[in-house]
Amino acid sequence: MRPFVFVNIAMSADGKISTKERRQVRISGSEDYSRVDRIKAESDAIMVGIGTVLADNPSLTVKSPELRAGRRAAGMDENPIRVVVDSRGRIPLDADILHKGAGKRIVAVSSEASPGTVEALRQHATVVVAGDGTVDLRVLLEDLHRQGVRRLMVEGGGTLIWTLFAQGLVDELQTFIGNIVIGGKDAPTPADGAGFLRETDFARLRIIEAVRLDDGLLVRWKVERA
Amino acid sequence: MRPFVFVNIAMSADGKISTKERRQVRISGSEDYSRVDRIKAESDAIMVGIGTVLADNPSLTVKSPELRAGRRAAGMDENPIRVVVDSRGRIPLDADILHKGAGKRIVAVSSEASPGTVEALRQHATVVVAGDGTVDLRVLLEDLHRQGVRRLMVEGGGTLIWTLFAQGLVDELQTFIGNIVIGGKDAPTPADGAGFLRETDFARLRIIEAVRLDDGLLVRWKVERA
Repeated sequence: MRPFVFVNIAMSADGKISTKERRQVRISGSEDYSRVDRIKAESDAIMVGIGTVLADNPSLTVKSPELRAGRRAAGMDENPIRVVVDSRGRIPLDADILHKGAGKRIVAVSSEASPGTVEALRQHATVVVAGDGTVDLRVLLEDLHRQGVRRLMVEGGGTLIWTLFAQGLVDELQTFIGNIVIGGKDAPTPADGAGFLRETDFARLRIIEAVRLDDGLLVRWKVERA
Repeated sequence: MRPFVFVNIAMSADGKISTKERRQVRISGSEDYSRVDRIKAESDAIMVGIGTVLADNPSLTVKSPELRAGRRAAGMDENPIRVVVDSRGRIPLDADILHKGAGKRIVAVSSEASPGTVEALRQHATVVVAGDGTVDLRVLLEDLHRQGVRRLMVEGGGTLIWTLFAQGLVDELQTFIGNIVIGGKDAPTPADGAGFLRETDFARLRIIEAVRLDDGLLVRWKVERA
């Protein structure tokens, strides 16, 4: 058993999520900002890869006071559980995601993370050890499900999203497509990693919804065959 | 003076135009196939980079007999002028684009192409020499305009499209977004090359149209500031 997993990502019209220097850039606008805050508040947990934490230092908290109040009124923490996939335990101990806002944190590491690193991380988060070399995402998702996570939002980056797709662990893909061209063969994309080589292996999608939002488009895809 | 330049490209939902091995893959369906054939027939010239020629060996001819007949009835060649941007003159002399279908061919090289290469190419195409090291696209577009090209379609690949965007030479971007995820940090995207580094340099777009087509979406963007 695993949670419903949906990926939410903003990309440029040419399929980039940031510049090749991984500089965080404004791709969407205020309508999408509110939408993302809302779907975050509706999730039990929100997950990112360590690359995103190192590049952007996000807190991944719910920003709207009303949405936070709504969660509290429903007996939940103000913020969904924040989950970092971090095989070697490279997250800085002062990362915002470990300190800002109320709610649980989980750092998932593999057996590559040293006992000292795991010990230090336990001061700030629940540490899940799953997998050799890299985090075993299937095991991690089962663990999250046992902890009550039914709806998991994945915010990036491209490596984590690729790995989830490669292992058939994504149920829905939401892309905001912004009205910019970034370019760059080395710029991060919504799904990086090794990539599928054979057409028969591609993840197949079906459009749920495509609507204009801000100066771009929001496209929601159901993953039909991962 | 230069032609109206529009880029037409099919990409996956995660912004890839092929696999990292540059294998040509089916991203769209029959509706988009007909659409692309029509906009090709409506263009005076169609341009690709040498990478696309080497990877796919396209002929870039108009496929529909009716559309070809329509062009003939209007006093035009059956096919738009086919233009290859090929700085060093690497195009194989037996490439389909040089042989299949009626109509003119132009191979644009830079001063890097050897005189022998240029001489051999002249057997099969008009050779335009423009620029040192790489083809000077602005000069090439002015040359095409002088030859009567008013509407130029660019079919790829990602390097040529990037260079056109970087130099402010694109008027419209048409993307078909297919219902697949390909993935791959090294897979070609609609705009590769160096990429913009500063947000103020990004090309800015405005949506002209976004419609469902086949199992995907066709999005037409006007380039507001290149």
